[in-house]
Amino acid sequence: MHHVRDAIKKRRSIRKFTREPVSENDLAEIVTAGSWAPSGLNNQPWRFVTIISGKILDRLGELTRYGHILKNAPAAIAVFIDHEAMYNERKDCQAAGACIQNMLLATEELGLGAVWLGEILNQAEAVNRVLDLPERYLLMAVIALGHPADNDQTSERKDINTLILKKL
Amino acid sequence: MHHVRDAIKKRRSIRKFTREPVSENDLAEIVTAGSWAPSGLNNQPWRFVTIISGKILDRLGELTRYGHILKNAPAAIAVFIDHEAMYNERKDCQAAGACIQNMLLATEELGLGAVWLGEILNQAEAVNRVLDLPERYLLMAVIALGHPADNDQTSERKDINTLILKKL
Repeated sequence: MHHVRDAIKKRRSIRKFTREPVSENDLAEIVTAGSWAPSGLNNQPWRFVTIISGKILDRLGELTRYGHILKNAPAAIAVFIDHEAMYNERKDCQAAGACIQNMLLATEELGLGAVWLGEILNQAEAVNRVLDLPERYLLMAVIALGHPADNDQTSERKDINTLILKKL
Repeated sequence: MHHVRDAIKKRRSIRKFTREPVSENDLAEIVTAGSWAPSGLNNQPWRFVTIISGKILDRLGELTRYGHILKNAPAAIAVFIDHEAMYNERKDCQAAGACIQNMLLATEELGLGAVWLGEILNQAEAVNRVLDLPERYLLMAVIALGHPADNDQTSERKDINTLILKKL
C-alpha cells in the first residue's frame, strides 16, 4: 500500500473551485495536519488565519497578480510565522514549508483542492493590514482552497538521477 | 480513510536504528517523494546526496553535536538547494521544507524511520567539503535514516485554537 506516496505524487495545484463552501471542520482538519509538521526544537512557529469571508478574499485578491484565484475561492488559509517563536529564519521557513505541504496533502485527502500562493509575499505588509495583524506575524504563504472545478492538471518533475548529485 | 492524515500525525523523529542496511530502491523512493513537492515556479531547487558509506557517515557525524545519530545510522540523505536554480531564498527554503516533509512521510510508509538534522547547518561548508561539493550547493538539512530500533517516541503539539489567530 502506497497511500502516502500516491497522495504525494497525485497532488496538483488546483486554481478553480466550485461555489460549494468549505466547512469549518475541514479547515480545522487541514490546520491540524499542518500543525503536526516537524520544526526545529519543536518550536512550532506557524500561525494561521482561516478565511471564508468573500469580502476579505476579494481584498486579498487585490494584492496579488493571481488575485482571480482568491476572488473565486470559497476559502483560504494565510500561514504566518510568529516572530516571537522564531529561532532561525532559514529553519523556520523550512518548517513553514513542511507545514504547508502537510496542509496541501490533507486538503487533497479531504476531496478538496488547493494552490500555494507565494507571489502575494510581495505585499506581505498589506496582507497583515487587511487581516488586522501586527508585524509580529510574518507572512509565509496564502493557500486558496475549495472543491475542485478542474482536476485535469498535469505536472512534471526532473528525473531523480539528475537530482541525486552523488551516491556515497 | 485517513491514511495521509494518520501518517502525518503518527510520524516521529527516529534517532536509533538497527544495523539492517537501507536499500538503494528505498532511497530512490524517498528522493522521488521529495521531488514531488511543490516549489515556486516549479523551479525544483532541491538536490540530494545519498550516503550509505559508514566512513562518510562518521565524518559527517564529527560535524554536529548529534553526531552519534549519524554514526549509528545505516544511511543518510543530505538535502541541498542548487544556488543556480534559486529564485527567492525564503521561498526556496520553504520548498526544501516541503520536500523534506515528503521524504519523512515516505520514509515512514516504507517502514523506515528518520530524523531531520538541522543543527549541522552550522557546519554547512565543512559538510560540502566532506561530500566534495562546490559552494553552489547550499545545505538545507541532513536526514539520518534506517530501520527503527525505537518506536516509542511521543510528541506534543499546541492546540490549534491557539495557532489559529483569527477566523474571518
